[in-house]
Amino acid sequence: PLIAVLAGDGIGPEVTAEARRVLEALGLDLTFEEAPVGGAGYLASGMPLPPDTLALAKRADAVLFGAIGDPRFDALERRLRPEAALLGLRRELGLFANIRPATLFPGLEDASPLKPEVVANLDIVIVRELTGDVYFGEKGHRTTLEGLRQGYDHMSYDEREVERIAIVGFEMAKRRRRKLCSVDKANVLETSQLWREVVNEVSVSYPEVALTHMYVDNAAMQLVRRPSEFDVIVTGNLFGDILSDQASMCAGSIGMLPSASLSDWSGANGMYEPIHGSAPDIAGTGKANPCAAILSAAMLLRHSLADEASAQRIEAAVKAAIASGARTADLGGTLSTREMGDAVLRELV
Amino acid sequence: PLIAVLAGDGIGPEVTAEARRVLEALGLDLTFEEAPVGGAGYLASGMPLPPDTLALAKRADAVLFGAIGDPRFDALERRLRPEAALLGLRRELGLFANIRPATLFPGLEDASPLKPEVVANLDIVIVRELTGDVYFGEKGHRTTLEGLRQGYDHMSYDEREVERIAIVGFEMAKRRRRKLCSVDKANVLETSQLWREVVNEVSVSYPEVALTHMYVDNAAMQLVRRPSEFDVIVTGNLFGDILSDQASMCAGSIGMLPSASLSDWSGANGMYEPIHGSAPDIAGTGKANPCAAILSAAMLLRHSLADEASAQRIEAAVKAAIASGARTADLGGTLSTREMGDAVLRELV
Ligand SMILES: CC(C)[C@H](C(=O)O)[C@@H](O)C(=O)O
Ligand SMILES: CC(C)[C@H](C(=O)O)[C@@H](O)C(=O)O
Repeated sequence: PLIAVLAGDGIGPEVTAEARRVLEALGLDLTFEEAPVGGAGYLASGMPLPPDTLALAKRADAVLFGAIGDPRFDALERRLRPEAALLGLRRELGLFANIRPATLFPGLEDASPLKPEVVANLDIVIVRELTGDVYFGEKGHRTTLEGLRQGYDHMSYDEREVERIAIVGFEMAKRRRRKLCSVDKANVLETSQLWREVVNEVSVSYPEVALTHMYVDNAAMQLVRRPSEFDVIVTGNLFGDILSDQASMCAGSIGMLPSASLSDWSGANGMYEPIHGSAPDIAGTGKANPCAAILSAAMLLRHSLADEASAQRIEAAVKAAIASGARTADLGGTLSTREMGDAVLRELV
Repeated sequence: PLIAVLAGDGIGPEVTAEARRVLEALGLDLTFEEAPVGGAGYLASGMPLPPDTLALAKRADAVLFGAIGDPRFDALERRLRPEAALLGLRRELGLFANIRPATLFPGLEDASPLKPEVVANLDIVIVRELTGDVYFGEKGHRTTLEGLRQGYDHMSYDEREVERIAIVGFEMAKRRRRKLCSVDKANVLETSQLWREVVNEVSVSYPEVALTHMYVDNAAMQLVRRPSEFDVIVTGNLFGDILSDQASMCAGSIGMLPSASLSDWSGANGMYEPIHGSAPDIAGTGKANPCAAILSAAMLLRHSLADEASAQRIEAAVKAAIASGARTADLGGTLSTREMGDAVLRELV
């Protein structure tokens, strides 16, 4: 199988290198091909998502993605900024389903700002819709009739978009503790009202899953109050962006959290990335935690290569490394990115 | 001065009664007039915001609001549901500035799911825009060209809307620790890009305030990680809805948090309400915490009646009651709503 390695900007290359080392250590038949993306893509060829990079991503069996974002390019027009690469890949590869697990690794109870008893047994999955919502609607600047500058973005979902992400949520819940919480703002948004309607329709096919609905403001509160009550959360693109970053704090550090972005349940063309960003402030210092990238590689094996056994080998190794006390700076330790990679490799059995 | 008392649904009447008792105990020259709103308005006259209620709110010097929301009316069309009353009052009274302080009262460190050292010294104010954004844009259901049901909502801000709320944020910060954090999603939304542009323009008039910008996903994370680093946060309607509910957890309980909604900096026609909702599950049981309502009454005195001294008397009384160990169920105690009101009244000096 061919893995496209798009390491990107900031700490992306550092953490992706460790993920690749771990994948290589498994002795599987994998081929790796690298290509620039984000700010790196812009520097290499004048655009954040160079055509060759996109072609590689499409050709590959899976994409291992690092991070994008570089303040040097913030002043460029939107289509040239690093973020455009990420949004472009999601759209071009049809990656509508973003799976973001948040698990507390034993030993990290103290790394969380939440009380240990609040995060004990935390094991949630956020299923975030990734190719619709206000992210991809018509948007722009215009002048109002009164001559005022105005910015606007169109938010919408249609029933097919909601149905397919709802199915991912229910399928995920079915394989876990069978609780699905759908998050929306149906008391204010028509988009949410359709969302709720369709999720209810899909639920008829999943009588074994207990479905609840929650407003996003309440969900943001409950994720701090009683995060371990959640099993699977399914939500739209914008709310998912906010809630999954927030949930990362329950897991101790955003440096521990991987993600998978899928275009269908079979995992073809999936893209795998840590949910943290490019962290320009620590880029190049060797301080970044590579665990999120390494755990993303595990998700790659699980979802795109159907190799559950190897995925679990990686996850067990990360768990063991953490249990043995290996800690990067974000977890209150002193290990470098490379040393944390070494620690995981040592535990790989 | 005339105070319109719109107690509303669920626990609204119970907590508002305590707030009114505290106001009455101050011996000020206040007149109170009650009117039904929300589900109560619908029951009384077939609409959530009866014309007489709106007229009273407009005529009054300030509105003391309880809560709206009643599951019995969830199936009604949007304009008849309780929420329509709240959105209608905000729009009709032009209440564009929603001020939501989140302070940790000494003694409540343990009530928060966050570690005591994380919430120590918490004292933030969220300034939320309240009459624009995707809340008030064009919205509806339609059928796409492919024959699919679609829900949509239009998000937008114009420069005047952003400017006036930014001014509130800067003015607030100027009177406090002089740090303003503007929260948006400018890497994805054009609405946010205009937001950021205008906030930067307004900042020129406030050289003494240190302005930062933060993406909403990161803000949701930082509000869990290091909430006490924030001083004043200014943000749009939707993000403010999410972040302020989330921030309430830092303060121990949403039952402690008041809010003010203003149509201008002078406070004329302001509306004051606890940020919690109607809590239908405990309505009528006498379990609700009246502190948020009582503290909202304090904000009413401060902002609409320019009576800072009386506002501080109330706040000091709540603080003393909490310090003396008075606790309702949400804070892990056993006091009833009325008993908590008594505890505050006892401390009123
Ligand atoms: C970089 C940004 C466009 C992106 C998003 O908002 O989706 C990021 O925050 C994420 O969650 O992957
Ligand atoms: C009830 C609802 C419409 C309202 C809102 O979203 O503004 C509430 O959550 C609030 O924050 O006051």
